[in-house]
Amino acid sequence: MTSEPHPATGAWRAGDPPGDRRFFSFATDHPFAVEDGSVLRDVTVAYETWGTLNDDASNAVLICHAWTGDSHASGRAKPGHPTPGWWDDVVGPGRYIDTDRWFVVCSNVLGGCQGSTGPASPHPDDGRPYGSRFPVLTIRDMVRAQAKLTAHLGIVQWASVIGGSMGGMQVLEWAITYPSRVRSIVPIATCMQASAQQIAWGTIGRQAIRLDPGWRGGDYYDAAPGEGPAEGLAIARQVAQVTFRSDNAFTERFGRNLTDRARVGDTFGLWQEFEVERYLHYHGEKLVRRFDANSYLVIAKAMDLHDVGRGRGGLETAMRRITMPNLTIGITSDILYPEYQQVQMRYMLGLAGAPNEYVQIDSPHGHDAFLIHFDRVGEPIAAFLDRVDRNG
Amino acid sequence: MTSEPHPATGAWRAGDPPGDRRFFSFATDHPFAVEDGSVLRDVTVAYETWGTLNDDASNAVLICHAWTGDSHASGRAKPGHPTPGWWDDVVGPGRYIDTDRWFVVCSNVLGGCQGSTGPASPHPDDGRPYGSRFPVLTIRDMVRAQAKLTAHLGIVQWASVIGGSMGGMQVLEWAITYPSRVRSIVPIATCMQASAQQIAWGTIGRQAIRLDPGWRGGDYYDAAPGEGPAEGLAIARQVAQVTFRSDNAFTERFGRNLTDRARVGDTFGLWQEFEVERYLHYHGEKLVRRFDANSYLVIAKAMDLHDVGRGRGGLETAMRRITMPNLTIGITSDILYPEYQQVQMRYMLGLAGAPNEYVQIDSPHGHDAFLIHFDRVGEPIAAFLDRVDRNG
Repeated sequence: MTSEPHPATGAWRAGDPPGDRRFFSFATDHPFAVEDGSVLRDVTVAYETWGTLNDDASNAVLICHAWTGDSHASGRAKPGHPTPGWWDDVVGPGRYIDTDRWFVVCSNVLGGCQGSTGPASPHPDDGRPYGSRFPVLTIRDMVRAQAKLTAHLGIVQWASVIGGSMGGMQVLEWAITYPSRVRSIVPIATCMQASAQQIAWGTIGRQAIRLDPGWRGGDYYDAAPGEGPAEGLAIARQVAQVTFRSDNAFTERFGRNLTDRARVGDTFGLWQEFEVERYLHYHGEKLVRRFDANSYLVIAKAMDLHDVGRGRGGLETAMRRITMPNLTIGITSDILYPEYQQVQMRYMLGLAGAPNEYVQIDSPHGHDAFLIHFDRVGEPIAAFLDRVDRNG
Repeated sequence: MTSEPHPATGAWRAGDPPGDRRFFSFATDHPFAVEDGSVLRDVTVAYETWGTLNDDASNAVLICHAWTGDSHASGRAKPGHPTPGWWDDVVGPGRYIDTDRWFVVCSNVLGGCQGSTGPASPHPDDGRPYGSRFPVLTIRDMVRAQAKLTAHLGIVQWASVIGGSMGGMQVLEWAITYPSRVRSIVPIATCMQASAQQIAWGTIGRQAIRLDPGWRGGDYYDAAPGEGPAEGLAIARQVAQVTFRSDNAFTERFGRNLTDRARVGDTFGLWQEFEVERYLHYHGEKLVRRFDANSYLVIAKAMDLHDVGRGRGGLETAMRRITMPNLTIGITSDILYPEYQQVQMRYMLGLAGAPNEYVQIDSPHGHDAFLIHFDRVGEPIAAFLDRVDRNG
């Protein structure tokens, strides 16, 4: 691994504090072919684990993160982890996914920028960031990289694979691609295939990044600090942020309030801010500090390409391969992965006859509710894992 | 009027074919003060009329257009009007708003780019486009400019003021600002005040325009053809286009179909297109050809600033000023101006005791349904106008 600086990106760099990350790298004599036909060499998967794998390796749970998530699902903020784990209230000792009982693993997705190989990683040919040379990926590629990590960890079968949003896409692909290696699944606020509206939001965000002169066709890693595609990435994030929440939640929280800065003016300004604009700017800028724009593009495209039926005889045929107990969780106010998609998914997950549960989170917070209502998402998962454990 | 070319914008230019437009210009000795404190001189309002004003001027109907609309509500495509009227199936001889009976007027909003004074218009000081010198406007400013046109036309009272989306905002402001000059109103798929989510979509589009290097801080009118803020404006339009339609409509129409161009490739491409992406690009590029980016910014901001309660003691106090018969039309699948906002508005429109009707358009097409289901929006309007006419 090199320590090339990436001054124009929020990507984790090999020289940065690893936090709790560990790294599994594929041998160079085993290149990793991705679905688009490209081959990656020197693939690294960054991961974290909590708890202890038991003697028969039967207590392993895989947690799959969403779009801009990373391997730090649980644990405190510390060097290498500027914020606590993104599901810290769900995963930990004595918590819903109890790490005193389960051996929990979370890995950064292939294409990501928090330790796993992605566009900001050094290309083995020249040690310089892949940039525009990085291939288009699919959710299946991400899952196949996770499968290699799974073998490395000595885990023959996951007791459960759990994830929300893009994490849920990985959950479905795990169940279909490796049915014998998954004992149960929990897809949350996700979809079997990206809808036209989901693709629409995705492409708008990607175009905003491409429009940013700082993006430079994807090869911006030599740019001076502040000269990367920060503004384009921030706009892309703002599009997503609106779809992650809800009309009601925005009205409750912001209404038509103006920021203090805007209130001091006696006149209206074209760029004066309502509170909701300040909030969006905040989230855009926050993401820019921790995320790489090219990873954002690649992962967004992987979500658009997500279709469990592709090359498998269609959606229903693919879903009928899922034969393990499953728990689907949907959110009433989700405008990005609307609840009807969860209800359809739950129906399709029942076709093969496996135990088939559905839990509705009745929340005004929209898609992000699974990252907000830890209790409402955690309790049914804990009960589900109990049943999975009892039934061996 | 000058004939300065505006090569980098889709604005109508004074030298272009006028189509059916007529122009009313305010005298230079009557400057027009707008709400933000600025003063405009030489204001022109472009308008079209259909039908004949009767002797007591009692048959005049004002139609207010939406965001990127213009005065050409009815009529064929011809030089100066590249497309037929945007409500041609609703407005015309023998149609729902029957121009054999009603004298119908539609004017381009102040700040627009189809003949009325806007950012692309020549500044009276130097004849060069206003550009960044153009003030921030409000819906009230637009309505006050329309009121001057109204006096010019010899119309003391509109039999009805009708409009959807931003047109509906103008309808409400007409009723509150000039209650004695409006005999009835028909607001359609609109709101009493912009919500936080509506503002969120607005600010994202504006930021995309600002990010475009071709925008040049708003002073791009000297740019060579193709070097204006076309890409930023196209992205802004795409954001809007998604909110104008619906999840179901997109799924029905596009699903996950790929364009022919994308299908020929054996591999996935980061910029390869699903049909829905092609559709969004088409709508973005189509708008660029006919619309000015600065007008888009100014009008979008005016919608965000829309709040009938501002400076009037709040929403309810303002709405209680509306004492004329009213018909509210809402659309079941509208994600931009959701039906609950129409239901709230209808309730508030009843507070002062005026005849108060509501019609729901049950359509999967989203916000744009009022521009698609001409019959479903036209029939209740025709019946409402009948009643208004009978009751004098």
